Amino acid sequence: MNNHVETGEEQNTIGRRKVIIAGASLAAVPLFASVGSATAEAAQATPLKGPFTVRAYGTKGPKAGFAPMQIQRRAVGPKDVLIDIEYAGVCHSDIHIARSEWSETPYPCVLGHEIVGKVAAVGSQVTKFNVGDYAGVGCMVDSCGTCENCLADREQNCLRGTTFTYCAPDKVSGGMTYGGYSERIVVTERFAIRMPPGADLAAMTPLLCAGVTTFSPMQHWNLKPGQRVGIIGLGGLGHVALKLGVARRAEVTVFTTSPSKLADAKRMGAHEAVLWSDQAAMERLANHFDMIISTVPQAYPMQPFMNLLKLDATFVNVGALDDLQGLNGMLMGFGRKTFAGSMIGGIAETQEVIDYCAARNITADIELIAPEQIDQAYERVIDKDVRYRFVIDFASSKRT
Amino acid sequence: MNNHVETGEEQNTIGRRKVIIAGASLAAVPLFASVGSATAEAAQATPLKGPFTVRAYGTKGPKAGFAPMQIQRRAVGPKDVLIDIEYAGVCHSDIHIARSEWSETPYPCVLGHEIVGKVAAVGSQVTKFNVGDYAGVGCMVDSCGTCENCLADREQNCLRGTTFTYCAPDKVSGGMTYGGYSERIVVTERFAIRMPPGADLAAMTPLLCAGVTTFSPMQHWNLKPGQRVGIIGLGGLGHVALKLGVARRAEVTVFTTSPSKLADAKRMGAHEAVLWSDQAAMERLANHFDMIISTVPQAYPMQPFMNLLKLDATFVNVGALDDLQGLNGMLMGFGRKTFAGSMIGGIAETQEVIDYCAARNITADIELIAPEQIDQAYERVIDKDVRYRFVIDFASSKRT
Repeated sequence: MNNHVETGEEQNTIGRRKVIIAGASLAAVPLFASVGSATAEAAQATPLKGPFTVRAYGTKGPKAGFAPMQIQRRAVGPKDVLIDIEYAGVCHSDIHIARSEWSETPYPCVLGHEIVGKVAAVGSQVTKFNVGDYAGVGCMVDSCGTCENCLADREQNCLRGTTFTYCAPDKVSGGMTYGGYSERIVVTERFAIRMPPGADLAAMTPLLCAGVTTFSPMQHWNLKPGQRVGIIGLGGLGHVALKLGVARRAEVTVFTTSPSKLADAKRMGAHEAVLWSDQAAMERLANHFDMIISTVPQAYPMQPFMNLLKLDATFVNVGALDDLQGLNGMLMGFGRKTFAGSMIGGIAETQEVIDYCAARNITADIELIAPEQIDQAYERVIDKDVRYRFVIDFASSKRT
Repeated sequence: MNNHVETGEEQNTIGRRKVIIAGASLAAVPLFASVGSATAEAAQATPLKGPFTVRAYGTKGPKAGFAPMQIQRRAVGPKDVLIDIEYAGVCHSDIHIARSEWSETPYPCVLGHEIVGKVAAVGSQVTKFNVGDYAGVGCMVDSCGTCENCLADREQNCLRGTTFTYCAPDKVSGGMTYGGYSERIVVTERFAIRMPPGADLAAMTPLLCAGVTTFSPMQHWNLKPGQRVGIIGLGGLGHVALKLGVARRAEVTVFTTSPSKLADAKRMGAHEAVLWSDQAAMERLANHFDMIISTVPQAYPMQPFMNLLKLDATFVNVGALDDLQGLNGMLMGFGRKTFAGSMIGGIAETQEVIDYCAARNITADIELIAPEQIDQAYERVIDKDVRYRFVIDFASSKRT
């Protein structure tokens, strides 16, 4: 494939984690090279007093591609933590927003809502973290904390407006929020997740979005052992959903358009892996599933999959955030089929999925990339050529 | 309005039931005029021995209109009842199917799936009815009775195929089933509903489809006293849904496109009646409803109503049986909104809604018509000019 970013000669495999960054490749990355120990110490002192400058990878327009830029982070407030970012996952949503495909994106933007790093400073009232702990940040960085929804651990539905991790109005500092494709981030501790320090943190990073997004519907619709769940799409979300379904001892069937992914699905524990084009299987599996989770990041004709649900069963869409296609009133009426939307999960649920996965050694299958490889990584995600999540390795670039 | 069928001079109002058939009008209807007492007695003897001929109103093509025709009914089997039809409701589905708007309709067809009449004969093993009882038939006339779904009182989802009341393959007699726009029907007692003899049977007739169709989702999604339910569309189904919601002591809001229906909605007990075009109300009612039931019989952009649901609440579509329009993945994801299909209800649930409504004096608002007025009635339904259900009066035409 032409657009592989596997430019390095050296490939280390740590368990299922495929490390494709090579020293040679990173040597060409000056962005974080200057964050040496002296600079880091100076930076640690500054953020407690006033806003400070952080280096990031951002984009200035739908077709501009990624380049290093400077952004401002707020001073570390009494309840804030400063996180030295080590890993940032690449979610398909990042691509949609980088390219202004959903609504008008405010530029410049810095994406990244799967973020893990080391706590470098804590505000005076912080109780959840010590300096040196590992913290994660998902899709949200703030909410009112007092409305009905926030009190019900549904910060993503804050009635006064959730502050999402990037491209959202920043109610604390003004301007827009900047995400995790950056050197450091300041976030209120309420929105920071405790990460297990001994775990494979790079491979856990995608759980902060892909994990909670697929875990949440399994929890809410109570996927039970022995039940049959269909997972549509085997990408970043889909492969985590598969692993989470297997962990629940559900019978998982994966639907993919990529013949090359069938074996992977079985390897990860799928009972069956089916190509969308396999009409015989689609007929055989009619009225078969207790639940289906669709992770495909754009609209497609969904009714053929609705037909695979049992009576009263639910199809949960966590991927397609545009206008839905091809649902049919009569076919859904037969058998009282349900279509539900679901979007990430609350902070408590995000902590829960991290703890759940840590206890069971569930991680994402990742490919580590250097920050300057983001453009290529985006192309590979679109070409369905990622196994199964890119994670930007800021830790290595800082060490270089 | 030009296409009113109120041709008669005499209008009797019995409670909310508007009787618009005039003697003068019926005198022009020869169809059932010959079903006098002698003929009726002869007919009672015949059906127990072999198939027999029944007069009906049917249509021979999408644009053919209705005309008298002869159809065959099967001999009354050991578990069958023969019903002398007195009333048959006109459902919007009848129109879609008469005009071949959903799939290819088999012609000639005889529609009608809200049927009430007097039991004229019973098979030797019938236990549920005596001759002289009143019986109702809804949208189904048979199912296997032994599959998982039938055993769960979900005959409408029979795994071997439900036999619907019209235009469905008749597994007993061969050919297609013929519905209630006819003189008599033979049906297995399992699919006949016991009707309360002292009730206003003409006005209860629509409950056999419109009633159970709207009652069933309120039962399944457990609409509770004090909860807020939105009813979209104030037609045959919508006005029954409104009454059923009020009976449950829910707070009912009706959404209609007809300014002339706003007062009716309030009269029937709606807390509020809102025009679709009332943008201020649509904004005010965001995140307001515990449940919404859409009774509109065709697709329309549904997302503006989805936005009126509370977190985790359900929009139930019982009307639009074509391809759905305008549902948005992102907006449904926010707040975990659910869209569900629902279609009629099982036989036990149909009996339940009849008993429930009889106990509470809940009936449909109807306009009685003569059989030869079906074409005009269809036009008025399409023009949203029915208050609120047409019922064909075969009882009167037989008495003429």
